[in-house]
Amino acid sequence: MASLTSHAFFYHLKCSSARENDPTNHKQGNNSSIKVNGIPTMSTTKVESNSTATKYASTAPVAETSYVTVAGEQSRQNIPTKKQLVDTHRQGVITQGGVGYTQTIVVRSYEVGADKTATLETILNLLQETALNHVWMSGLLGNGFGATHGMMKNNLIWVVTRMQVEVDSYPIWGEVLEIDTWVGESGKNGMRRDWLIRSHLTGEVTWVMMNQQTRRLSKMPEEVRAEISPWFIDKQAIQEDNPEKIIKLDDKAKYANSNLKPKRNDLDMNHHVNNVKYVRWMLETIPDLFLEYHQLSSITLEYRRECGSSDIVQSLCEPDEDAVKEDGNDINLLRGFSLTSRSLRATCSWVHLKNGL
Amino acid sequence: MASLTSHAFFYHLKCSSARENDPTNHKQGNNSSIKVNGIPTMSTTKVESNSTATKYASTAPVAETSYVTVAGEQSRQNIPTKKQLVDTHRQGVITQGGVGYTQTIVVRSYEVGADKTATLETILNLLQETALNHVWMSGLLGNGFGATHGMMKNNLIWVVTRMQVEVDSYPIWGEVLEIDTWVGESGKNGMRRDWLIRSHLTGEVTWVMMNQQTRRLSKMPEEVRAEISPWFIDKQAIQEDNPEKIIKLDDKAKYANSNLKPKRNDLDMNHHVNNVKYVRWMLETIPDLFLEYHQLSSITLEYRRECGSSDIVQSLCEPDEDAVKEDGNDINLLRGFSLTSRSLRATCSWVHLKNGL
Repeated sequence: MASLTSHAFFYHLKCSSARENDPTNHKQGNNSSIKVNGIPTMSTTKVESNSTATKYASTAPVAETSYVTVAGEQSRQNIPTKKQLVDTHRQGVITQGGVGYTQTIVVRSYEVGADKTATLETILNLLQETALNHVWMSGLLGNGFGATHGMMKNNLIWVVTRMQVEVDSYPIWGEVLEIDTWVGESGKNGMRRDWLIRSHLTGEVTWVMMNQQTRRLSKMPEEVRAEISPWFIDKQAIQEDNPEKIIKLDDKAKYANSNLKPKRNDLDMNHHVNNVKYVRWMLETIPDLFLEYHQLSSITLEYRRECGSSDIVQSLCEPDEDAVKEDGNDINLLRGFSLTSRSLRATCSWVHLKNGL
Repeated sequence: MASLTSHAFFYHLKCSSARENDPTNHKQGNNSSIKVNGIPTMSTTKVESNSTATKYASTAPVAETSYVTVAGEQSRQNIPTKKQLVDTHRQGVITQGGVGYTQTIVVRSYEVGADKTATLETILNLLQETALNHVWMSGLLGNGFGATHGMMKNNLIWVVTRMQVEVDSYPIWGEVLEIDTWVGESGKNGMRRDWLIRSHLTGEVTWVMMNQQTRRLSKMPEEVRAEISPWFIDKQAIQEDNPEKIIKLDDKAKYANSNLKPKRNDLDMNHHVNNVKYVRWMLETIPDLFLEYHQLSSITLEYRRECGSSDIVQSLCEPDEDAVKEDGNDINLLRGFSLTSRSLRATCSWVHLKNGL
């Protein structure tokens, strides 16, 4: 696994779904389904109300927020420096015994696609947003990219290696979502982040550290472990016992988009292509006719290299010949999306929609 | 002026700035400047607090929200059907004597560019979002595109003809914005919408109606006028006495991006290219070197034709040879952006940044 810049940090998702408890939920068109997450430890922390964060924000005293200007980044960002329990503006609240985070978010008009449901891009953006807000609230944020004070001292940034998302149903325009997120340990040097967007999808992320100068992966210093480990919760949105190996495609792939050049607008705060843009490139390689009658139900991504503004990207796509049937629905696997050259690999599962979008 | 579909409704901006009261505000790097809007009638309605909507949301009783499913659009959108004064989820509140709308919004991590300030695209998106939320709150919304009940009955949709935005400074990542918006009359058959994003920019929009089937512009039926006129406020964010005529460019333009094909992701709920995407195409035609040292301070757009998924677009750009100096800063006018074929025209002013972005 090669280097990635810090902006990738927020996308190192390994997401999985509560579908184990409700296998019928993968059926087509169930966009409004209400699901209960089946992870046992979740039940002890789950809040029954459908508007937890708002309720907290309305009744709890508003925490004092102090803002600082990061050195060398004059007036470019506002970072709360003190640990907070409630953020009324972001409608966020610290949960799960003081270490988790829940935020209420409304799906906005410009965040949905032609079918009026949130796009995958929107979902990934919301995962990033809530992750960052959680770090802000924790008081750990050393700079704007999610690095802690100890990480900054050691010149370390977060990098993504793998991301997994499973969608049971897509949130619709105007819908009020409640997003839970928390972090946990992942091996000796990694950190994981989980998300649960009630009642639509779950997510989980692990990531590792990279030296900002050498661009090489780094062990997690004790100093950093001491900083972040009090926030760890030993609870995964889903267990993945045998992570699937994602194949690498080559030029023989059935579908390809070549000569993709990052636009100015594709670059994020790190001046590199944002991970969400990768996913857009990937999805644009899939034939329209397929997308018309299928809805993505899960995606696993492996980030392998960063992509700068001068890179030229190729997006490859190969349908899986071993498409399977499940629960009476056509579940077609379209495997092995791959961005070669600057590099991401993915595999997706789809739900067949009988009437199209 | 030719037809445009209803999704354009929200972008028919004519925006202008409070800068008349503070000419120094156009200077470079003033991203944190606090400005007082100088429109006299505004002062009577302006709320002093920096978190009006939140405050309302915390103290006012939460309005009962009822949701309906629009016929033929099963579960695809949630539309409040009753007039509301407070929306706690969206942090919105009815203001200005019952007819205006104010919403608190936080600039999210994925809504800023590499320079950590909100992109123009983000700003336009937020204008759309608050406009729509205002219509929701008013109880007028007949469907998801901003058409009223009377308009639906008459098979009418809103179309954009012109949009104008002036930016004094760009909001930064994490900033809490307060956005005021209201509507007013515009001629016999038009409606205008104004925005004031304190303390960064102001906006104003007018639009007209089109018959959904014939795609021809329509007079405003009395029934619709009776519906919407109680919401009109006779107050403009800025007076524009002599609207500037925007020139049309041809193939001789200095910069051109040809063969632009709308991607699946560029289509909005109306299955047409969203207006914000047009603006992205436009800005991508401008040379990187220019953008590195200039920040857009105002833009005027005229929408002329709708653009569908099968259209091929050409974006043209011509710098204005008559660049002017103002207030000791280089204000370069880059005029006559034009998307020919499917069609939008624009003219922009820029502030020169001595040290680049």
